[in-house]
Amino acid sequence: MSQRIKLEDVAKLAGVSRATVSRVINRRGYLSQRTILKVEQAMERLDYHPNVIARQMHSQRTNLIGIIVPTVGNPFFGELTAAMEHELFKKGYKVLVGDALNDPEKEQRYLRQLLGHQVDGLIIATHNANIPEYQNTNLPIVAIDRFLRSDIPVVYSDNYGGAKQACEALIQRGAKYIIHTDDLSPLNDQDTARRRAYEAVMKAHDRPAITYPSLPDPKQNREALQKIFIEHPEVDAIFTSNDLDAATLLDLAVENGYVVPDQLQIIGYDGTQTTQRLLPRLATVVQPIPAMAKKAIELLEAKLNQQAVPEEVVLSVNLKLGSTVKNYKINGEY
Amino acid sequence: MSQRIKLEDVAKLAGVSRATVSRVINRRGYLSQRTILKVEQAMERLDYHPNVIARQMHSQRTNLIGIIVPTVGNPFFGELTAAMEHELFKKGYKVLVGDALNDPEKEQRYLRQLLGHQVDGLIIATHNANIPEYQNTNLPIVAIDRFLRSDIPVVYSDNYGGAKQACEALIQRGAKYIIHTDDLSPLNDQDTARRRAYEAVMKAHDRPAITYPSLPDPKQNREALQKIFIEHPEVDAIFTSNDLDAATLLDLAVENGYVVPDQLQIIGYDGTQTTQRLLPRLATVVQPIPAMAKKAIELLEAKLNQQAVPEEVVLSVNLKLGSTVKNYKINGEY
Repeated sequence: MSQRIKLEDVAKLAGVSRATVSRVINRRGYLSQRTILKVEQAMERLDYHPNVIARQMHSQRTNLIGIIVPTVGNPFFGELTAAMEHELFKKGYKVLVGDALNDPEKEQRYLRQLLGHQVDGLIIATHNANIPEYQNTNLPIVAIDRFLRSDIPVVYSDNYGGAKQACEALIQRGAKYIIHTDDLSPLNDQDTARRRAYEAVMKAHDRPAITYPSLPDPKQNREALQKIFIEHPEVDAIFTSNDLDAATLLDLAVENGYVVPDQLQIIGYDGTQTTQRLLPRLATVVQPIPAMAKKAIELLEAKLNQQAVPEEVVLSVNLKLGSTVKNYKINGEY
Repeated sequence: MSQRIKLEDVAKLAGVSRATVSRVINRRGYLSQRTILKVEQAMERLDYHPNVIARQMHSQRTNLIGIIVPTVGNPFFGELTAAMEHELFKKGYKVLVGDALNDPEKEQRYLRQLLGHQVDGLIIATHNANIPEYQNTNLPIVAIDRFLRSDIPVVYSDNYGGAKQACEALIQRGAKYIIHTDDLSPLNDQDTARRRAYEAVMKAHDRPAITYPSLPDPKQNREALQKIFIEHPEVDAIFTSNDLDAATLLDLAVENGYVVPDQLQIIGYDGTQTTQRLLPRLATVVQPIPAMAKKAIELLEAKLNQQAVPEEVVLSVNLKLGSTVKNYKINGEY
């Protein structure tokens, strides 16, 4: 074709407006998968290559990054959000925060608004399943601890390795009857990694693997965890998927007359600064929150600059011992 | 004057651009106090009254609200931010979050950027002193627990009343030697309310009032609080200004051989959901975080709609007893 193809030719062939073509090119705005396909097919058929300079000029960066978490009121996501905000601020970005809670509808409405026009990129650390908006956008996205789409990179911490270390530490300290608590709504393979590691260690040592549900509502969760002591009075160790469960179980242990750690050892998971200050003696698997934040921002920046990024990055965790397990004595008993 | 005065007449007389006059009228953007004064004086001298409709048309609402807190990584500010975000989302706003930390320079840079163009209003819950930007803006602002300027409304919880209740509860339970921990950098009268209440109760009961500093760094804070047991071994109760101190002191009590609550009673302050889950047995003064969030958003909306607002609103708090004080037994000992 000798004549220079223009944006409006693509729009005409795709049967959409010029603005829509521009949005597809500039990877901005909420677009249905169908629209993206139509425009991209039209561009291909016409051999249309948008000018890179023009594209950058049109891209209208807002220097806003959206972060969607279950809630910043949870210490893990609060500290993660704080760490990401610090990194982003240093790089000249400001942060829009949305709490999706356990409400897929809120996450969806939030996303539609953000994809619409306001942010340069997104970091997603939510746990709601089946949000179609993630499939239909070209906006740069990085996920934390959650698989969304094959071309959206994920930052994990080593859930399997951390859980394995914790369970083996309990076995080494003489635990015979180890129970696990875990969220019952896994979205993907990594979501079940802590449980799978627990089950593998139990199997390797010929012990039964028993997992109790961890519920989002504190009162319901306490009632659910109380059942451990009724249904399995022989329990002598518990490995929990989060520190909130560990705290509740520490309290329930007292109520049920178990001495920690002599009769019941407990290891939690997450190890936030808040937990370490409020429960300094709790043994727990410490997730590398600052490193996870830094890596997520690094990947997002690479995506913003159209550089290649790995599909996933796994960061190592650290088992912090404490006086909720045996053979740990620094200053007195728990 | 018979001839209709125009925006450019005001600009000419004030010696500024039309855009600056528009920004003063529309209460948008960062403006020095001097510029605001010059423009307002010029408007007065010319008897210029901007058309309200035109003003609204020019106001270009972004539906973004900025929230600046010390850090969302702290459970109190994390839960407060989460509660405000929920309220704002219901009203169609999205939230820009900035962590000022204890860094006045970061707060200042953050503010300059936000005042520049991006938000419809601000909620400030930081603790840094002497940030001149707060004096020089017309942007609608609401403060939480902090006085900024006489026309910026403040949402407080009843710091004096909560502290008084806590100290009296300790006296009623036989405490003779009560020590207080508190932040040592008060910005205003309300910042010292908890300490003043402690001192008043001590005075009324003829007891000495001794306040130890609460430091932001966890390790330094622990070292500072350890001194209580060395310098005042006769201590039999501690009322702390925050739950993190209470948690550290619970741990130090064990290390120093004090049995809680028989030999040492402890009451904390804040009572976040996180604290209540991690330390369910801690007696603490519970701040009404959801009510504070709701009130702050209500005041901000009133300011956005140019309605009158009170200078301050004080919400009541609730002393939650627990097994860190005597005469509290529900299920076993702490």
